[in-house]
Amino acid sequence: MPKIYEALAKNTATKEEVEKFTVGRDRELDVLLAEFDVLGSLAHTQMLESIGLLQTSELKLLQKELKVIYREIKAGQFRIEPGVEDVHSQVELLLTQRLGEAGKKIHSGRSRNDQVLLDLKLFIRSEIQKTVVAVQELFEQLLALSEEHKDKLLPGYTHLQVAMPSSFGLWFGAYAESLVDDLLMLQAAYRISNKNPLGSAAGYGSSFPLNRQLTTDLLGFDSLNYNVVYAQMGRGKTERNVASALASLAATLGKMAMDVCLYLNQNFSFLSLPDNVTTGSSIMPHKKNPDVFEIMRAKCNKLQGLPNEIALIITNLPSGYHRDLQLVKESFLPAFQELKSCLQMATFMLQNLIVKENILDEEKYKYLFSVEMVNNEVLNGVPFREAYRNVGLAIEEGNFNPPRQVNHTHEGSMGNLQNDQIREMMNQTLATFNFEKVQSAIERLVVDYRP
Amino acid sequence: MPKIYEALAKNTATKEEVEKFTVGRDRELDVLLAEFDVLGSLAHTQMLESIGLLQTSELKLLQKELKVIYREIKAGQFRIEPGVEDVHSQVELLLTQRLGEAGKKIHSGRSRNDQVLLDLKLFIRSEIQKTVVAVQELFEQLLALSEEHKDKLLPGYTHLQVAMPSSFGLWFGAYAESLVDDLLMLQAAYRISNKNPLGSAAGYGSSFPLNRQLTTDLLGFDSLNYNVVYAQMGRGKTERNVASALASLAATLGKMAMDVCLYLNQNFSFLSLPDNVTTGSSIMPHKKNPDVFEIMRAKCNKLQGLPNEIALIITNLPSGYHRDLQLVKESFLPAFQELKSCLQMATFMLQNLIVKENILDEEKYKYLFSVEMVNNEVLNGVPFREAYRNVGLAIEEGNFNPPRQVNHTHEGSMGNLQNDQIREMMNQTLATFNFEKVQSAIERLVVDYRP
Amino acid sequence: MPKIYEALAKNTATKEEVEKFTVGRDRELDVLLAEFDVLGSLAHTQMLESIGLLQTSELKLLQKELKVIYREIKAGQFRIEPGVEDVHSQVELLLTQRLGEAGKKIHSGRSRNDQVLLDLKLFIRSEIQKTVVAVQELFEQLLALSEEHKDKLLPGYTHLQVAMPSSFGLWFGAYAESLVDDLLMLQAAYRISNKNPLGSAAGYGSSFPLNRQLTTDLLGFDSLNYNVVYAQMGRGKTERNVASALASLAATLGKMAMDVCLYLNQNFSFLSLPDNVTTGSSIMPHKKNPDVFEIMRAKCNKLQGLPNEIALIITNLPSGYHRDLQLVKESFLPAFQELKSCLQMATFMLQNLIVKENILDEEKYKYLFSVEMVNNEVLNGVPFREAYRNVGLAIEEGNFNPPRQVNHTHEGSMGNLQNDQIREMMNQTLATFNFEKVQSAIERLVVDYRP
Amino acid sequence: MPKIYEALAKNTATKEEVEKFTVGRDRELDVLLAEFDVLGSLAHTQMLESIGLLQTSELKLLQKELKVIYREIKAGQFRIEPGVEDVHSQVELLLTQRLGEAGKKIHSGRSRNDQVLLDLKLFIRSEIQKTVVAVQELFEQLLALSEEHKDKLLPGYTHLQVAMPSSFGLWFGAYAESLVDDLLMLQAAYRISNKNPLGSAAGYGSSFPLNRQLTTDLLGFDSLNYNVVYAQMGRGKTERNVASALASLAATLGKMAMDVCLYLNQNFSFLSLPDNVTTGSSIMPHKKNPDVFEIMRAKCNKLQGLPNEIALIITNLPSGYHRDLQLVKESFLPAFQELKSCLQMATFMLQNLIVKENILDEEKYKYLFSVEMVNNEVLNGVPFREAYRNVGLAIEEGNFNPPRQVNHTHEGSMGNLQNDQIREMMNQTLATFNFEKVQSAIERLVVDYRP
Repeated sequence: MPKIYEALAKNTATKEEVEKFTVGRDRELDVLLAEFDVLGSLAHTQMLESIGLLQTSELKLLQKELKVIYREIKAGQFRIEPGVEDVHSQVELLLTQRLGEAGKKIHSGRSRNDQVLLDLKLFIRSEIQKTVVAVQELFEQLLALSEEHKDKLLPGYTHLQVAMPSSFGLWFGAYAESLVDDLLMLQAAYRISNKNPLGSAAGYGSSFPLNRQLTTDLLGFDSLNYNVVYAQMGRGKTERNVASALASLAATLGKMAMDVCLYLNQNFSFLSLPDNVTTGSSIMPHKKNPDVFEIMRAKCNKLQGLPNEIALIITNLPSGYHRDLQLVKESFLPAFQELKSCLQMATFMLQNLIVKENILDEEKYKYLFSVEMVNNEVLNGVPFREAYRNVGLAIEEGNFNPPRQVNHTHEGSMGNLQNDQIREMMNQTLATFNFEKVQSAIERLVVDYRP
Repeated sequence: MPKIYEALAKNTATKEEVEKFTVGRDRELDVLLAEFDVLGSLAHTQMLESIGLLQTSELKLLQKELKVIYREIKAGQFRIEPGVEDVHSQVELLLTQRLGEAGKKIHSGRSRNDQVLLDLKLFIRSEIQKTVVAVQELFEQLLALSEEHKDKLLPGYTHLQVAMPSSFGLWFGAYAESLVDDLLMLQAAYRISNKNPLGSAAGYGSSFPLNRQLTTDLLGFDSLNYNVVYAQMGRGKTERNVASALASLAATLGKMAMDVCLYLNQNFSFLSLPDNVTTGSSIMPHKKNPDVFEIMRAKCNKLQGLPNEIALIITNLPSGYHRDLQLVKESFLPAFQELKSCLQMATFMLQNLIVKENILDEEKYKYLFSVEMVNNEVLNGVPFREAYRNVGLAIEEGNFNPPRQVNHTHEGSMGNLQNDQIREMMNQTLATFNFEKVQSAIERLVVDYRP
Repeated sequence: MPKIYEALAKNTATKEEVEKFTVGRDRELDVLLAEFDVLGSLAHTQMLESIGLLQTSELKLLQKELKVIYREIKAGQFRIEPGVEDVHSQVELLLTQRLGEAGKKIHSGRSRNDQVLLDLKLFIRSEIQKTVVAVQELFEQLLALSEEHKDKLLPGYTHLQVAMPSSFGLWFGAYAESLVDDLLMLQAAYRISNKNPLGSAAGYGSSFPLNRQLTTDLLGFDSLNYNVVYAQMGRGKTERNVASALASLAATLGKMAMDVCLYLNQNFSFLSLPDNVTTGSSIMPHKKNPDVFEIMRAKCNKLQGLPNEIALIITNLPSGYHRDLQLVKESFLPAFQELKSCLQMATFMLQNLIVKENILDEEKYKYLFSVEMVNNEVLNGVPFREAYRNVGLAIEEGNFNPPRQVNHTHEGSMGNLQNDQIREMMNQTLATFNFEKVQSAIERLVVDYRP
Repeated sequence: MPKIYEALAKNTATKEEVEKFTVGRDRELDVLLAEFDVLGSLAHTQMLESIGLLQTSELKLLQKELKVIYREIKAGQFRIEPGVEDVHSQVELLLTQRLGEAGKKIHSGRSRNDQVLLDLKLFIRSEIQKTVVAVQELFEQLLALSEEHKDKLLPGYTHLQVAMPSSFGLWFGAYAESLVDDLLMLQAAYRISNKNPLGSAAGYGSSFPLNRQLTTDLLGFDSLNYNVVYAQMGRGKTERNVASALASLAATLGKMAMDVCLYLNQNFSFLSLPDNVTTGSSIMPHKKNPDVFEIMRAKCNKLQGLPNEIALIITNLPSGYHRDLQLVKESFLPAFQELKSCLQMATFMLQNLIVKENILDEEKYKYLFSVEMVNNEVLNGVPFREAYRNVGLAIEEGNFNPPRQVNHTHEGSMGNLQNDQIREMMNQTLATFNFEKVQSAIERLVVDYRP
């Protein structure tokens, strides 16, 4: 009999059952936010002192102790104790245990609502930065492979039917360029996240003369979520937009994994993997399965469902905070780690991929060259629609024996990959994130902290 | 008995049945793309002439006739004839009927695949611009109402429970600021869309010496989709990312509609509507229902499902074109009109909203002022946690009689809305779209076209 | 300038603009409900007379005229006139025009809400029946092909890697059996739909002494949606559950289409299609693309998104009718026709599929037989784990030359397909729908109607 | 620096990194399947002996030891050891450690694929049974409250506008009846799950003369998944259909939670909660928030996204096993516990709900009675459309003063709730699950097991 039902049966169900149900996995998830909660308090307390709600001596004590806690978190020594509800309470508890009265004062002028909003924004900023690093590594890996294998031809398919010649140079490079566009979405998500909600309190502001610009500057935010009702409205909305950007990256990775699984299939055999990164079967002694790419594909496809999951939770909730928003954390916080592990594993696996040579020599690929033949006729003055008919006829009559050469020279074609231009686009996008600004603000905040 | 089954029964099912199934609503939807198909051909033919695949005299004829067709489309005189499969064929047919051989030459160096990719990108650019205009109108309407009603108080709820005082200034302003963040997503979608796929042909490039930079410049694109395999991979992906941005706007509108429906409810009565924009009931003579806001909410919530619908269609498709991508148009193309109609209707309805005064005078709202009381004690030196207990005790004992005044002064609070700063953020975002650049390129392309 | 904005600019926006926005595509969609609206009125009027709210003479007139309208609808002569909002008003209008006062009386004791609820339920019942017919045809086609090709072997893949021998008998039969399980979902959806909501009025019942059991019997329903609040709550919920069942069928079809597209690919070539059911390319003269299966796959994947789309619209709406529910019709009503066209096209295309013989003769498939070899050793007394190692070693050393024979005899294996048992399961499921009961009720209602 | 990247940097990344990525949370999740894995082996070994692949003496040893392990699992003493990949390997390891050679033989004639398929089906059966128990408890609670409060009136809303009188009897009863329909979906899911996949091996059957009917009978299944390719195709599909059924239940609960949150709001105040099941605010001393209902709503809305998440993972995968399917477990297995906790918490909280009396006495509710007035006129012979106009006019002129009485008597109306009929429908549905059959089969399998 489930515990809650026993309680129910005896009519002794108590606050504990209710708390267990509502708190859920918060304690576990909140540890991910601990570092950011302390950063927020470092800024908030400086601001409180500046408007006279903390004495300078209290501020000094609090700053010192908060940095100690920050160091403990970074060293992996922080945990949320059993009786404590969340990360915010745990930090406040530590401060009060260690400093007494001063610890109780730090909650002035803020609410749990803007505190968690702030923690989430700082967490997102930090995680987006780590994600961008992993994207950049994968991007460089893809471009390197594109250059290395630029002369190796590959059948190009449309409708999954043999269509025209392609190349590994194009194929690797395509996924690199896809990452550039994905970062545009991530950049928008970053900008939405990089605004300060602190000071919105429970979503309706405060009668204290808070200086919100000060905490904005201290925490390195681009600007404020000005309107306090909007600051609260950003909860859920921010997560969904960030999730949409993660989904875009996941879709690129998932598609690449699908291609790889197909090309590893024995009917294609365009790629192969060394044994040590494949897995066997419990009954088939010959199997070497590409489980890594299948799991990558599945993780990425699951991530694609995240924006929708968040939408289902928040849709049709009137404005103002609802506890529902808390549940968004369950799937949202771990999503970054999931995606990063996929990005890193993709980089690693690509280093191990073995690319087949001379694929197009096989008879079944000769029709790939039909467009080349048509175009040659056109270049010799035959109107396109007529040249098309001529080659079509030759194919039908079995007289189609094309030279297996391709000479593509235009921008982005297999003879002119323009990988440098793609890298240039990537660098331009990367530059606009301006992570350095945030980095220096954070370093100033924890200035005497040495890991 | 359904037609297809009759055919099946008689074993006479033919190509027509197949075509009907595969073409679907393409003819109807493609009309939305006609204008852009012609723009693409105007640029493509200039490029073909520059590389010697069209004679200058042919180019002149084609340019002239394409502009005629463009004018016909703008005048609503264009349609796709029954026997013709899509917009591309219809335009080519018109050219060939009117110009003979020259008309047949314009398909050199491109495929149906990059042609439709181009049409979609040009369509998206144009529709995003129109959407931004509608957003801007709504934004100004919201800010105007925020200013007009800035002194009218409103209960603020958390957990849907009476929490703290809010105001109509905050409430209208919050939705205005929400639109600013939504435009950041739309801007990312715009940037992804504003790259030239033309020249990628069937997704594997061409053996013709195409000058893709030239068409990029002529059409006013920011840059190319360089890698031709990636250009094709952008199909579906672009639509999904654009849909994510539309979904963000839709979520803002949908939430506002939910709030309005709640506030129109007789238990709230914070808002009311004039009779002429409400609807009645078939059995209840007293009803004045806010159907517009309900339909708006539903349309917006449906739009929130669009990115997921596209994901379901394209997920796990290997790289390269698949006909599946064609079906994305069915929901994607009309989505812009749906959203614009919601934005415009929201602007209109907001002009009609009647805002109630002196709401907070009612007895049930007195607890809204509990935080003010706590903060007052804090400002008088009582530690926060103690002040909180004091007020809590007064409430429990029935001794809570707060003055109903609020004095919020910090940035973004009800006494200091910072609507100018919000407008400034909006303007900065609007400026980065740089629609003028695209506009002038298009005008140059159709230079002697006067609507 | 969009029409709504002109109106807005001139401040003359009127009820018409509002109506256009709220009515949307209702007029077009409601035609699909017309037949069922009349059936509902045939039953409702009989009931009204039985409780004295209609005179017997009025009933006679109304029954006669309703049957005339029913005949007009069946003959395709019914349309909703421009000024009329929906199907219910159109039918009432016709009655009033033709019968005067009596026409005005039929709305007693019902509301637009329970009327549309009823229409939807009757429509769903009818469409599920048609869907089941199309499923049955496809099922028989699949079983026929399974029998016809039961001896033709096919590589079986796991992880998309060559795994063990399979057969076309198994492959076709698998999709047949999948349809059996899909029908279980459809049956649940049918049962949920086959309950009478009439009499729930606006969702709170009526002060008239309605006899709801009578209309339940007249319309052939299994039972009532008893609780009137629940009857209304069924709106949206019913559609989502029906959509879940359609999605299950769509998933089966979509997966089959994916398999077919893969097997038609030249690297597999397990299947081929006659030219007249393929389509060509605008630039590649050799292409014969399987567009039908791609469109089928895309349509089915889109259908898989429908339950989620409905969920997004209805989630978090409090109980009671909301106009939002009306918008569910837009995607829901056409879903049946989409799915039926896919089912019928699948049946037709399967008749045209050409199955390759002797596929497994190719060298690359020899490892398919590794498990057979392991099992042979086991049958000769070698422990499984040891036999597995022996065969693995032979493969590694290049000494693996298996006889290419399979002897599978257990239930459901390629040597013992058990297609009869699968058909038996199908028939049992089909029987439980009991469409005859509904059929006879409807026929009694429109007794003197001869199409 | 993340661990995988360190490895990558030093070029020492090994099989361990790959395993960590692919195994993911399998060890943790598989514990949920342990009990069912042993049940499957109890049946499989009996079958193996019956066809001569195990000696009778070996069978005896294996049966005895498997029951020991079963007992350990039930006692919570089972865990998957660090070096062991999954539950199947752990059980086999224990058997081999304890019994030597005989332990190695149990994997004959099955694959990891059909083994996990079987575990999942047995798990689903068991979890559905537990879910049904929780549904039944909630159902009875709802009906009890419906009876208890049947005379307490409540405003009924349409369009969230005051519409007609409703009652707590109707409101509680509506959710009870909703559960009846939800169980129809769950029953379909149960039937799909209650078929035996064992013997399908890796999805292509086995050359051993397996007796699949025997394991079907031993495990109490309704029938077989006959076709072995279909048996494997059921993976993912079964989970999605089960998830659709759970989503239907979740939607009912989520809607109820939304209603409750609204009715607890001070503008409604139809319901209230004792303090000990509410939570406070960190800054507002007066708050008593209904967090339990908000978390319930959020959990249920998240569950509504599950079918879509599974669809995104499995859509467009060709037939045959893919490792992707493994990832479905991550969200699917815990979904049952999530839903059960919501059902149980709902039952508990309903016991604590305080229902307000005499709600309709307030002036603002008088228009609820407009339909009663219209109907009274109709019963006195006035045509409906005319009566409607009369009452409308009275309202407009401020002359509407209705007697606040309702007299609804028809089936399912507030005066005639028909709760007995609703319970009868529930009982009929419950009976068809026939859990007893499964129960006895399981008991026979573990016959000398005493917990």
